[in-house]
Amino acid sequence: MQTFFRYNWIVREQWYQWCEGVPSEELLKARTGGVGSILKTLFHIADVEYSWIQFMLGGPDFQDSFEMYGSLDQVRTLDRRLRHDVEAFVTAWDSSMETRPLYDVRPDGTSEVHAWGEVMRHVIAHEIHHIGQLSVWAREIGRAPVSANLIRKGLIKPSV
Amino acid sequence: MQTFFRYNWIVREQWYQWCEGVPSEELLKARTGGVGSILKTLFHIADVEYSWIQFMLGGPDFQDSFEMYGSLDQVRTLDRRLRHDVEAFVTAWDSSMETRPLYDVRPDGTSEVHAWGEVMRHVIAHEIHHIGQLSVWAREIGRAPVSANLIRKGLIKPSV
Repeated sequence: MQTFFRYNWIVREQWYQWCEGVPSEELLKARTGGVGSILKTLFHIADVEYSWIQFMLGGPDFQDSFEMYGSLDQVRTLDRRLRHDVEAFVTAWDSSMETRPLYDVRPDGTSEVHAWGEVMRHVIAHEIHHIGQLSVWAREIGRAPVSANLIRKGLIKPSV
Repeated sequence: MQTFFRYNWIVREQWYQWCEGVPSEELLKARTGGVGSILKTLFHIADVEYSWIQFMLGGPDFQDSFEMYGSLDQVRTLDRRLRHDVEAFVTAWDSSMETRPLYDVRPDGTSEVHAWGEVMRHVIAHEIHHIGQLSVWAREIGRAPVSANLIRKGLIKPSV
């Protein structure tokens, strides 16, 4: 579990670095699919990761909109701020939390329940999925995307 | 680990079903990014999943090219055939395999080593990444993509 979060954080940081070399018009340009722009995707990833973890913790909802963070620097700063709580939660994860229920009661009275372990994996897959979208948009503007390889990042040390 | 594989297999099957409603020219059309077409992406996902697992098992290399499987039906049949061994390997996975070394010696004599646990997560992330690309291409042809949600698939039962 932690391995995938660390993978995602490394890849996300590499995308922020990639963004440094791209004009801000391209980062903000409306694109087909996903949430619509490169920078909005990075905001959305950080937002969704933080929001689910807040939901499990019973903390206040994160309701800021992308329009409040319209530049690369602002999104990165927000991400760094949210990461603090996310990282603490991920580091403290243990297997007893896997099936803990998360009740989601909607305003209309309907409800559903997720296992915390599902939610954590949902957050992981959510990021990787959106990063895949960035890789297509990168090629559309003629640039090589960040590698999505999980190997070669030193995430698990082989017992050699 | 198994949860993510089951997630990927469900989503992949849903993409095959999605493909049934799309003309084969669109499935084969060259697109920007990724490996270049919708059907080739599905072939590539099945190929990479199987190939890494064969590599860990020390089995023979899978060297078939996409051109040998140029239709939706052929790719699905291949996928079903390869899945047999993949599923057996994933089901038998246990935590003692996490740091087992996989040595990769290249024809030029250079080499690298991966932990089996890294390789398994690499295979998982690889599929989710490429599925993200399909979601953009789906919108390009005016169709809603398959949901990438990991929640609501009954993958982990909450202890309620």
